[in-house]
Amino acid sequence: MSDVADWWSTEIIDMEPGRIAFRGHEIQDLIGQVSFPQMIWLLTRGDLPSEAQARLLEAALVAAVDHGPQAPSIATARMAVTCGLGLNGAMASAVNMLDDVHGGAGEQAVELYGWIDGGVETGAAIDRWQAERGPYIPGFGHRFHKPVDPRAPRLMALVRDAAEAGTVSGRFAEIGEGVAAELAVRKGKPVPMNIDGATAVIYAELGFAGPLARGLFCLSRSVGVIAHAWEQMQQGGRNKGPTPPQYRWTYTGPNEAD
Amino acid sequence: MSDVADWWSTEIIDMEPGRIAFRGHEIQDLIGQVSFPQMIWLLTRGDLPSEAQARLLEAALVAAVDHGPQAPSIATARMAVTCGLGLNGAMASAVNMLDDVHGGAGEQAVELYGWIDGGVETGAAIDRWQAERGPYIPGFGHRFHKPVDPRAPRLMALVRDAAEAGTVSGRFAEIGEGVAAELAVRKGKPVPMNIDGATAVIYAELGFAGPLARGLFCLSRSVGVIAHAWEQMQQGGRNKGPTPPQYRWTYTGPNEAD
Amino acid sequence: MSDVADWWSTEIIDMEPGRIAFRGHEIQDLIGQVSFPQMIWLLTRGDLPSEAQARLLEAALVAAVDHGPQAPSIATARMAVTCGLGLNGAMASAVNMLDDVHGGAGEQAVELYGWIDGGVETGAAIDRWQAERGPYIPGFGHRFHKPVDPRAPRLMALVRDAAEAGTVSGRFAEIGEGVAAELAVRKGKPVPMNIDGATAVIYAELGFAGPLARGLFCLSRSVGVIAHAWEQMQQGGRNKGPTPPQYRWTYTGPNEAD
Amino acid sequence: MSDVADWWSTEIIDMEPGRIAFRGHEIQDLIGQVSFPQMIWLLTRGDLPSEAQARLLEAALVAAVDHGPQAPSIATARMAVTCGLGLNGAMASAVNMLDDVHGGAGEQAVELYGWIDGGVETGAAIDRWQAERGPYIPGFGHRFHKPVDPRAPRLMALVRDAAEAGTVSGRFAEIGEGVAAELAVRKGKPVPMNIDGATAVIYAELGFAGPLARGLFCLSRSVGVIAHAWEQMQQGGRNKGPTPPQYRWTYTGPNEAD
Repeated sequence: MSDVADWWSTEIIDMEPGRIAFRGHEIQDLIGQVSFPQMIWLLTRGDLPSEAQARLLEAALVAAVDHGPQAPSIATARMAVTCGLGLNGAMASAVNMLDDVHGGAGEQAVELYGWIDGGVETGAAIDRWQAERGPYIPGFGHRFHKPVDPRAPRLMALVRDAAEAGTVSGRFAEIGEGVAAELAVRKGKPVPMNIDGATAVIYAELGFAGPLARGLFCLSRSVGVIAHAWEQMQQGGRNKGPTPPQYRWTYTGPNEAD
Repeated sequence: MSDVADWWSTEIIDMEPGRIAFRGHEIQDLIGQVSFPQMIWLLTRGDLPSEAQARLLEAALVAAVDHGPQAPSIATARMAVTCGLGLNGAMASAVNMLDDVHGGAGEQAVELYGWIDGGVETGAAIDRWQAERGPYIPGFGHRFHKPVDPRAPRLMALVRDAAEAGTVSGRFAEIGEGVAAELAVRKGKPVPMNIDGATAVIYAELGFAGPLARGLFCLSRSVGVIAHAWEQMQQGGRNKGPTPPQYRWTYTGPNEAD
Repeated sequence: MSDVADWWSTEIIDMEPGRIAFRGHEIQDLIGQVSFPQMIWLLTRGDLPSEAQARLLEAALVAAVDHGPQAPSIATARMAVTCGLGLNGAMASAVNMLDDVHGGAGEQAVELYGWIDGGVETGAAIDRWQAERGPYIPGFGHRFHKPVDPRAPRLMALVRDAAEAGTVSGRFAEIGEGVAAELAVRKGKPVPMNIDGATAVIYAELGFAGPLARGLFCLSRSVGVIAHAWEQMQQGGRNKGPTPPQYRWTYTGPNEAD
Repeated sequence: MSDVADWWSTEIIDMEPGRIAFRGHEIQDLIGQVSFPQMIWLLTRGDLPSEAQARLLEAALVAAVDHGPQAPSIATARMAVTCGLGLNGAMASAVNMLDDVHGGAGEQAVELYGWIDGGVETGAAIDRWQAERGPYIPGFGHRFHKPVDPRAPRLMALVRDAAEAGTVSGRFAEIGEGVAAELAVRKGKPVPMNIDGATAVIYAELGFAGPLARGLFCLSRSVGVIAHAWEQMQQGGRNKGPTPPQYRWTYTGPNEAD
């Protein structure tokens, strides 16, 4: 029996009839005692964070819940329920889309900050990123929120408070601000940190690995996904398309095949 | 322009460059001020809950995060990352599976409680459920946790505390316990409330609609999905199958086609 | 070892190193010998169809490949690739949405036809459907293609040819046409069969169960999903939303929270 | 209206009430006239292939339909239906997993062949692949089918026939065989082409771009996904896990949290 059981071995959960323990904590001792962010940390990291650490994580989770129905994930969630899916299915189709371009900037920024933290000079890190990954520096600038993404300064203020209180080192806040400063010099105008740059500072300060930064963003954005899908359910509609039915698409192909 | 904008109308989020507001609250006033469960409530319900209400919601979210890799959703999440998916993709394939059978019991229990709350006698409600929906009464009994699902009594204790404090009415706790009592009489043995029955009591006490009970379960279980997918990423593996490679399946078809 | 292997028992595929057999046919004897529709039939049904049967199935598969980017599934596929997903991920988010409303009409029509084939009079079957399932009769009328869905008459002509040739009985063609006639009487205007009604006739004539009608539709529409996702990949774009960026949504919520 | 319509512009499909045309061909002229593989080609490529080209494509589609329930995608499809999903949902969770590791080898092999076709010497191409992408050379060797994947020689025989008939050039068959020969020299033992290497030869010979090789594989494997999901539906089961319920997982974490 052990080779079969070993195939699914895990450090996360232990179970027998009537008993569930996460990372060594019995579930009945966690319910009502730890916050949801603390539970998220426990499951993904293995230990329980302090309340101050959990509050900083919580701020990042609160900040990223939604960016409106123009986002392809949210539009998909809303269309999905009009196709007959429940909230689980709407979440699936929507969260799937939080990939490199739509949901990867936080993970990428954690990685970029890590290079700098590991000793690469800021300008050199930016050069290397652009050479290896392309022109977009993850976490800075915003195509819509100009001049400033309102979420970033608030998050960064919380990081600075946490650094002063000794909860985090403040090292990654400096790194992130250094990237913004370098980009501003290069572009000759401000390129402020956006939500992904700021949450990446938080995740890096708290010691989360890059892939978890993406996972936590997915968890946060799922709240908006559920809220929009549920609102659409109440609004009704069948097979809701991306634009009102009286609009169609421009056909650009041949009018008669040879 | 208005017919296009109206097609995606929403009460959830308002936005202009540099400004994001949820249900009338500016995002910078929410970050660091409200808990993640309060934000979940705000987005899905429209108003901010009291701290006591949010704590009860939080207990339900904490309780349901994971039930181990034997659950098809968690197994799928772990296999998914070995196929090359990131955490967003693993979440998608896994959360999709939290459908009627795997993730619908909470929603169904809210509905069943609603019948009783609406005046149907408990036994009649059970009869009607079984006639219309099949033999399983959602939220009661557990195929693994015998005699008792350790999450349920702890959650119900919190509901009773909240009822005493006036946070909730306690009406749905009575209803849920009434269902358990009736089932025990019918089966001649205890059929205790399980996690779905208990979280449904909480969601119903707090006024969440049935579909949101499923959505909130999906959000909670996503924590386990992310934790297991991330652990598997670190363990490595390529194209991890459901059983160790030396096992195969039993072929039961024809050995030679005619 | 047998309980583990038995857990995944199947009649579909047998395998050992260097050997793969489907339903008793060695793979090397199928490749280049059977058509893709024949292979689809073999895997889902267990036997190989005649060429005439396969051609009828093929017509249904050809007919349903795409209905344009106003369809929520196709829009989702196109948005998905601009979020960073590959074609597998685009297919996943898109095909998921082919649920009851967007992809279930064929399955539902097979079921409705089955009632009538089982002896229920056409009018009574329509009454029962509307009483139990709601006002929409699956497979008839079209909100866009007026007066006629151009796919349906062509498919029905092929069914009649096949009935004349003895490939199928023609029984379900009669049933489908009977439903259209009854609906026309009730509405006082033509309610012609649409693609779902016509493919359901084909699937029912060929003996496919209802759920497979949905599965085959998903397979067919996947062709359009892939084509559109690939075209969008070539067009480029990042985080493509449902409407051009200069459009936004109408916010209908409170302007200032209390 | 044109900016909204232009946002969804496509060369694939043109539509007005009562009319559907793909790449300039009216749908009623395609149904019953072109094969499913021809339709797949038309939608993804823009023109109709010859029958000989379509037959070669068809062989690749037939070859890859299934590899059994040990494959994570197939296991997921089977588990999914026991969670309450329909075939569309099972396809979504399963096809999503056909990512780089589980479904990307064909696309990668097309890319590798393209390097060699573009003038890179075979050995240098292998070296470059391993330096940039890692140790696995896509399309060669098989962890299970030893000594030979039975699908590959049959597919390659069809390619050689097609080259002799002038349907394809045979250039990519040579390239693929050259890679196998070089790998055999390096490893000191045969490293035969597998299904992905062979279908990639076909896709490259027919002029399909790499991403479409993955898309076509997803389409082909969807047949197995549907067949297994449907078989599982008939077998029944609720919340089927990866191993029989009497097995569990090995817990490797702390037994009591500090």
